[in-house]
Formats: sequence, structure tokens, C-alpha cells
Amino acid sequence: MAFRFKPVDDVFYDLFQTSAQHLVEGAAILAELLGEGADRKAIAARMQEAEHRADETTHEIASRVNATFVTPFDREDIYALASGLDDVMDYMEEAVDLTVLYEVGALPAEIAEQVDVLQRCAELTAEAMPRLRSMKDLSEYWIEINRLENAGDKSFRHILALLFGGSYDALDVLKLKDIVESLESAVDAFEKVANTVEQIHAKES
Amino acid sequence: MAFRFKPVDDVFYDLFQTSAQHLVEGAAILAELLGEGADRKAIAARMQEAEHRADETTHEIASRVNATFVTPFDREDIYALASGLDDVMDYMEEAVDLTVLYEVGALPAEIAEQVDVLQRCAELTAEAMPRLRSMKDLSEYWIEINRLENAGDKSFRHILALLFGGSYDALDVLKLKDIVESLESAVDAFEKVANTVEQIHAKES
Amino acid sequence: MAFRFKPVDDVFYDLFQTSAQHLVEGAAILAELLGEGADRKAIAARMQEAEHRADETTHEIASRVNATFVTPFDREDIYALASGLDDVMDYMEEAVDLTVLYEVGALPAEIAEQVDVLQRCAELTAEAMPRLRSMKDLSEYWIEINRLENAGDKSFRHILALLFGGSYDALDVLKLKDIVESLESAVDAFEKVANTVEQIHAKES
Repeated sequence: MAFRFKPVDDVFYDLFQTSAQHLVEGAAILAELLGEGADRKAIAARMQEAEHRADETTHEIASRVNATFVTPFDREDIYALASGLDDVMDYMEEAVDLTVLYEVGALPAEIAEQVDVLQRCAELTAEAMPRLRSMKDLSEYWIEINRLENAGDKSFRHILALLFGGSYDALDVLKLKDIVESLESAVDAFEKVANTVEQIHAKES
Repeated sequence: MAFRFKPVDDVFYDLFQTSAQHLVEGAAILAELLGEGADRKAIAARMQEAEHRADETTHEIASRVNATFVTPFDREDIYALASGLDDVMDYMEEAVDLTVLYEVGALPAEIAEQVDVLQRCAELTAEAMPRLRSMKDLSEYWIEINRLENAGDKSFRHILALLFGGSYDALDVLKLKDIVESLESAVDAFEKVANTVEQIHAKES
Repeated sequence: MAFRFKPVDDVFYDLFQTSAQHLVEGAAILAELLGEGADRKAIAARMQEAEHRADETTHEIASRVNATFVTPFDREDIYALASGLDDVMDYMEEAVDLTVLYEVGALPAEIAEQVDVLQRCAELTAEAMPRLRSMKDLSEYWIEINRLENAGDKSFRHILALLFGGSYDALDVLKLKDIVESLESAVDAFEKVANTVEQIHAKES
């Protein structure tokens, strides 16, 4: 009920910011997975909790769209932004979950590059969300996300080459490929969020 | 021409119901695949016919949208709903087809959990379509689909752990993983249909 | 600045045509990959350049949508069409890149069927783009793309059966499967472009 006396628009901006902050948190949990001797099960449990909180924020946005007559921008765009942010979390959680599920041994060190990209995307996205209010200074955000997505794609392909380079057996390739693909999907989902922001900006400004 | 004297809106509701009933039928054919000694080629042929009929309904909806001046809800939403229902069928047909194509041996018993989820999703969706007319009592449908999707996701991950657990060789893992991923995609496609219905409800009610 | 004195609409039609012509070029480069003794690295480098040019056209379309008050059809549809064309290029480039990255040996001859389909889809799409001006004679385009997508899907599944047929080891199956899946995704992306055109046609004509 804390939102009651705020103007309607503010609620949406606050919720998008909350949603992006869940991603900052999720990316940080993901980074812990790479630490030597990490307690993967405990990390996976915390990741799952973070993912549940993100889900709740997404549903909060959806139900407020339903209940609100005038929204700050098109309903479809609010849905697209909310579900785009949610997708990032789902892919990050998937990566952590698969690591536990497949009982993967040591993760290739190169995965750290993908996780770095994800952490920076999460921070940039969380910083950009409040700027939706004014629709100002957003272009640097989506340009940088696009640059990071390119860097992430290079890391991803580099890791694939490594996996197929002959030092892993087929089952390990299959396992690790699933994990790095989840991370790559998370990076792609950040880019999709940035594209959505760019489209909202184009329509509203 | 049977539709000629019906109000325009009714035609769309009837077609969505028909489309969802194809999915009930498809899920039932899929379930037969799990029976011991099932004639997989015959089942795949029937599945393909069901998929063709579903395609025809989808095209019928699309061509009616094109030919109709006033539609019961936004054109984009009609397309999204029709193509979402079509996607479910495509994934179910894919699962059956891959089973034959890969000459897979016995399917892991746990696949039955995924197929159960699909059958219940199909029934719920077929029951919900007529309620688009009044836009009433739809929330229980999408809530239950979301719950089933979570259950399906758990089954999916459980089967993945099983496949990588050491009793399957890499080629069999690859084959079976493709099949359970198709089934998981079908469940996800049901959830997307439910999300579309939720969005239509939000706009129209 | 060559566009300055053209009516606004024309710029978009020209850009869509340019975008589709990049795909004709990309599909031709892809076809070279299949030639015996092909210099794959050189081909991959040219493919990457073609992909960069396609990216630039996509961004040109997006920035013009932002800067233009009256667009020839809905902003969302312009984005959908531009990003759909861009997706095709991304998948074709991915297929070429993976071939180099995975150091794949001989490609199965059957891949030529998929590449044939892609070349014909690219030509049909490039021929159809100018017809967006009049919105006439477009149905034959999307019908033929749908037919080609069905043919492409048959080739794809045929190659999958071949890969799992026993003469490839698991690692080679994994590598080749990724490549043929990229090609299949490119065909699917052409179909999505055709569906977008069909929807634009339905709204605008």
C-alpha cells in the first residue's frame, strides 16, 4: 500500500527499477558460482529465491496494467519490458540450475567473461530504468548494451570452440554447452530489453 | 458457408475453440506414443494429420481477420492467439516425429509426466476458449496453466538430470534431450497462450 | 543524403529492399561454403562483412522510424519487418561461423537442399519488398515462402535422421546439428518475415 499516494506513473517506473535490481542481484549470485569451492546447492537455492522475487515484481506490473486506466506508455510496451526483464532472470537461473542438475565439474574459466558481461548489463539496465521518467539520456544505455552483447557473443563463440577443441568428451560438451547457451540467452534478453526501451523512446519522445 | 448467418464475432470464438480442440486431440495422440508396443509410425502419421487440420484452422482465422472489418478484439491479439495455439501443435508433432526419425528405443517413463501436463493444459485451454465471449472466469484458467507450467518445468529438469546421470550414452542423451525439449516447448507455448488471453482480458474487460 | 528529396515513404521501401538484397548476397556466400576445397575462413570473413552491412541497414531503418512523423505503416510493423530480415542474416552468418569455429570436416551433401531453399527465399523476399508500395501481388510471395519453409523443414529432418543414423560420432553429430539448426532457423525467420508482410497487408489494404 506504500504506492497508494504516488501518481500512477511513478508506480510503474518504481516497479521497472525494482525488476532491474533483481537482475543485479541475480548476476551477483551467478558470479559466486564461479568461485572455487563454491557451495553450488546453496547458491542455486538463493538464485531460485531471487527468481521468485523477480516473478512477483513481474506479476505486480501485469496486474497494475490491468487495473490502471492511463498507463505511462502503451500497455503492450509495458508487458514487453516487464517480460523482457523477467526473461533475463529466467535464463540466469537456468544456468545456475543446470550446473547443479548436471553435476558439472569445474567450469571453464572463460565463462567468467560471459558473467562479467551479464553483471555490467544488469547495472546499466538498473541505472537506465529511472531515466524512463524523463526519456532522456537513454541512447547511451542501449548503445552500450548492444556493444556488450557483441562482446558476449564473441566470448560465447570462443567457449564453444574450446568445448569442441578436443579436450572434453561428448557428454561434458553437451552439459557445458547448455550452460553457456543459457548465459548467452540471458545476454540476448538484455539486448531485447534495450531494444524495447529504444522503441518506447521512439514512440513517446 | 455454415458460418454465413452467424454474427462475425461468433466465428472467431468458434475457430479458437476448434483450434484448442485440435490440441486436445494432439495431446491424446502423443499419450499413445508412450504405450508399450505402440505403432509409432502410425501414431506419427495421425499426428501429422492432426497438425494439418490445426494449420487449416489457423489459416482460416488469419484469412477471416483479413476479410473482417470489425473484429472482436485487436487484430494483433487474434494473430497472437491463433499462432500461439498453432505453436503448441507444432511442438507436440515435433516430439512425435523425432521419436520416429531418431529411431529411439524405450522412452524414459518420466516423459509421461510431461505428457500429462500437456493433456491437462489442452483441456483447460479448450474449456477456456468459449469464455472469451463473456471475458468472465478466465483468471482461474491462466493461473492453473502457470501452475502446470511450473510442474512441467520441474519434470523437464528432472528428466534432464536422469539423462545425464550416467546410464545413457551421448548419442541417446542427444536424441532424448531433443524430444523432452520439444515437449517442454509445447508446455511453454501453452503458457504463452494463457499470457495472451490474460492480456486480451486486460484490454477488453 | 541521397534520400533527401524523396518522399518519406520511399525511403522505407528502398531500405527494406536493400535489407532483402543483403540476404540474397548472404545466401550466395553461404552457398560457396559447400563447394569442395572452399576457403572457409575467407568465406566467413566476407559473410561477417555482409552481416555488418545488414546491421547498418537495420539501424538506418530504426533511426528513420524514430525521426519520421508519418510512417508508411505502423511503427511496430516496420520494426518487426526490419528485425525479421536482420534475424535471417544472423542465422546464416551463425551457420558459416560455426563451420569454421568447430573445424568441421566435410559437410553432408544434403545441406545443399537447405541452402537452396534459403537462396530461393532470399530472392522471393527481395522481389516482394518493392511490391509493399502498392500492396499488390504479395499473396503469391507469402504462399511460396510457406511452401519453401515446409520443404526446408523436410530437408532438415532428413538430415537429422542421417546424423543420428550411426555413421557419425556424438561430437560430430553435435557440431553438424548446430549448423543445420542455424540454417533451419534462417528458413523459419524468412517465414516469419512473410507472416509479417501478410499482417501488414491485412491492415493496410
